[in-house]
Amino acid sequence: MAEFEAQTEVREDDPLEARRVAAVLDAVEAGDVARLTDLLEPLHAADIADLLEQISSADRRDLLRLWSGEIDGEILSEIDESIREEVIDSLPRDVLTDAVRELDTDDVVDILEDLEEPQQALILNSLESVDRVAVEQAMAFPEGSAGRLMQREVVVAPDHWTVGEAISFLRDAPYLPDQFYHVILVDPRMKPQGYVTLGRLLSSRHDVPLREIVEDSFRTVSATDDEADVAYIFNQYHLISCPVVDANDRLVGVITIDDAMNVLDEEHEEDMLRLAGVGEESAISDRVYETTRQRLPWLFINLLTAILASMVISQFSDTIAQLVALAVLMPIVASMGGNAGTQALTVAVRALATRDLTGSNVWRVIGRETVVGLVNGLFFAAVMGAVGWFWFGDARLGAVLAAAMVVNLLVAGMAGIMVPVLMDKAGVDPALASGTFVTTVTDVVGFFAFLGLATLFLL
Amino acid sequence: MAEFEAQTEVREDDPLEARRVAAVLDAVEAGDVARLTDLLEPLHAADIADLLEQISSADRRDLLRLWSGEIDGEILSEIDESIREEVIDSLPRDVLTDAVRELDTDDVVDILEDLEEPQQALILNSLESVDRVAVEQAMAFPEGSAGRLMQREVVVAPDHWTVGEAISFLRDAPYLPDQFYHVILVDPRMKPQGYVTLGRLLSSRHDVPLREIVEDSFRTVSATDDEADVAYIFNQYHLISCPVVDANDRLVGVITIDDAMNVLDEEHEEDMLRLAGVGEESAISDRVYETTRQRLPWLFINLLTAILASMVISQFSDTIAQLVALAVLMPIVASMGGNAGTQALTVAVRALATRDLTGSNVWRVIGRETVVGLVNGLFFAAVMGAVGWFWFGDARLGAVLAAAMVVNLLVAGMAGIMVPVLMDKAGVDPALASGTFVTTVTDVVGFFAFLGLATLFLL
Repeated sequence: MAEFEAQTEVREDDPLEARRVAAVLDAVEAGDVARLTDLLEPLHAADIADLLEQISSADRRDLLRLWSGEIDGEILSEIDESIREEVIDSLPRDVLTDAVRELDTDDVVDILEDLEEPQQALILNSLESVDRVAVEQAMAFPEGSAGRLMQREVVVAPDHWTVGEAISFLRDAPYLPDQFYHVILVDPRMKPQGYVTLGRLLSSRHDVPLREIVEDSFRTVSATDDEADVAYIFNQYHLISCPVVDANDRLVGVITIDDAMNVLDEEHEEDMLRLAGVGEESAISDRVYETTRQRLPWLFINLLTAILASMVISQFSDTIAQLVALAVLMPIVASMGGNAGTQALTVAVRALATRDLTGSNVWRVIGRETVVGLVNGLFFAAVMGAVGWFWFGDARLGAVLAAAMVVNLLVAGMAGIMVPVLMDKAGVDPALASGTFVTTVTDVVGFFAFLGLATLFLL
Repeated sequence: MAEFEAQTEVREDDPLEARRVAAVLDAVEAGDVARLTDLLEPLHAADIADLLEQISSADRRDLLRLWSGEIDGEILSEIDESIREEVIDSLPRDVLTDAVRELDTDDVVDILEDLEEPQQALILNSLESVDRVAVEQAMAFPEGSAGRLMQREVVVAPDHWTVGEAISFLRDAPYLPDQFYHVILVDPRMKPQGYVTLGRLLSSRHDVPLREIVEDSFRTVSATDDEADVAYIFNQYHLISCPVVDANDRLVGVITIDDAMNVLDEEHEEDMLRLAGVGEESAISDRVYETTRQRLPWLFINLLTAILASMVISQFSDTIAQLVALAVLMPIVASMGGNAGTQALTVAVRALATRDLTGSNVWRVIGRETVVGLVNGLFFAAVMGAVGWFWFGDARLGAVLAAAMVVNLLVAGMAGIMVPVLMDKAGVDPALASGTFVTTVTDVVGFFAFLGLATLFLL
């Protein structure tokens, strides 16, 4: 009853509004544990974790010193990996043990993955032996695999049971997972044969055989499948849960949609950050050192490609010395090419990720990008030809600019689609470094076409 | 039983592999309906929809001519909006009516949203009157709102019921939605008070009051809430379903996680495409005309900003005429600034979308980006100073290049974080046009700093 009354308070529009965060920090500074608890207790574990990420590391240390006894398993599993080690280090041993023991094995695995050896051992030793074995088995699967993602707690029924038998079994089961949405039907060798939704189970007559009410959309994944493929299957087929099988097709666990949604979100983040040339593990809570370490290598690669483009320009130093207008206009050609290439590239990377770009339509899409590049090229050739002419009063300069624009936008469209497709074929994530490749091509082609044509026709 | 046997065939690693698509197109060309059905029947509706998207529009027309009778509601709701009108136009009236009638109201709304007036009327008239009213009520909510996303079919129980009463009610209900995971407890005025998972219901004793087994994580959303906020709540709090209330807090529908996952995926796509300056409704199945129409305006904006950068360069024509090395090196400064700005920008846009960047930490993050910009700037100043010196044998040129690099990477870091934050404050999607803003800043600052310093110190 008490639990029920508490629900009315939960709904809040912005649990992490600046005023609440400021009040929390005030309470921390005043060392007022009671006030701190009043402020944090009503929050969902996910919001408490976000709050810990958003405050400075000094404030975090002070807050945890006052409040570490209240950190439970749920908060621990919500905390971003960028600050997880720091938080775990600050927890008293018994708090950590209690927190870890409340979690399902898949959440423990999720926490362990990002920790160093000594912290991993600390957490493994906190677990009861049956859970430790389960976690160690899960950790034996490759990182980023379905085996790491799944929970081992499954609800199964022999495939010859009726609705009534399944319901009696569920009612008498000593333990059921926190979250389950289906009863999985298995044969005597534990091979999954289908599943029945709980809604269907509840609304069917007791004498109906389970196998008559299985879902159409039943699919299984292998424990060694990549988690990105699992997320795709959930999204494509609107699954809520999906049984996981081993190499012998025997049931070993189940993945639920909240885990798949999380993977989808992470995959997206990875694509977005990779496209921008940022280490994919970047978080807003990273410090200067990590941030620099993630970004500097990509800037260095960009520097090398920029030098390559400069070397193209330096071949035409004499031409530029005779006609400085070329130096003024040449960045426009390169910039337009880079933008058009990035447009095509981004659409292609997204389409590859969602599997909308496949062997069946790749040539048609390449053809379309080429035509689009040509159309855009002709349009901007007309605009820039006119601008070049009127700005510098030289029709021939306008014509050269226009021609370079057509060449570069055409190349940009083709490179923007072909680079990610070829990287994908080669088994490399097309989001990774495609951008640098494409803009290198458009810079080099843009400068070469513009300055080369100028050398031929204007001097 | 027949339904059950069919499950064993469903699992396939790549339902849309090129060979199958080629076989489908062969069958279409041969006009072999039986073969076409053999090939398509085992596929999930989502895969059939993807296949329709991936083939050319001529092939699509031929396939639909042969097979339009088999297009059911599920396939229709899976089809991408870029080809939906075309498919609907090709369907015989009775096929369309049957297809639409099988769908839940939220799926009908999803289809209607993207259609023109006459097709909307056609579909509305296909519905039975009770469904038509429900769809029209949903369409009265703003586009992109929770009201459009929700299904109106809900499973409720008075909040004073016991587990036994709820189970009897479910067993006798003449109709239950395809998908439901909770029984929502309502008071006599239909205000939701909590919900009970079906798993909990099945495993509890019959005399337990429902209100004693409600979920902790219960939340409701308002029908006018933005769907992006709804997706955030599902992802943040790991919800499976969420009741939707009207302005009087009365239950009007429920949103399930598969819809939320879909919205999350669309929001991702929108962010990614907007960051790249591509109209956010781009699809790989778009034709040349739509693709050009989506991309050209952004390229035009980029052209204007590129011209702005060129006008900065033209102020230094005399300087460049005296020292052509400047024309060779200046794109490096601009390129490095643009890349560093894009890195900071992308991390900021992502953090704003996931609500990890808030009023509480924005100043700390701005400070960090500034320091990172400075550190990167100093590093690349050293590298480029040396390169400039050795390449052109001029230490002072190297020094000017180094100084310009520091200035531009510092500005890039600050602009990369402040532009999206200010756009967000102004209520504009920070993914939209931030990139153009930031690269304009880094181009203008880069050219101005490099050429300006050169004019002061090298001539």
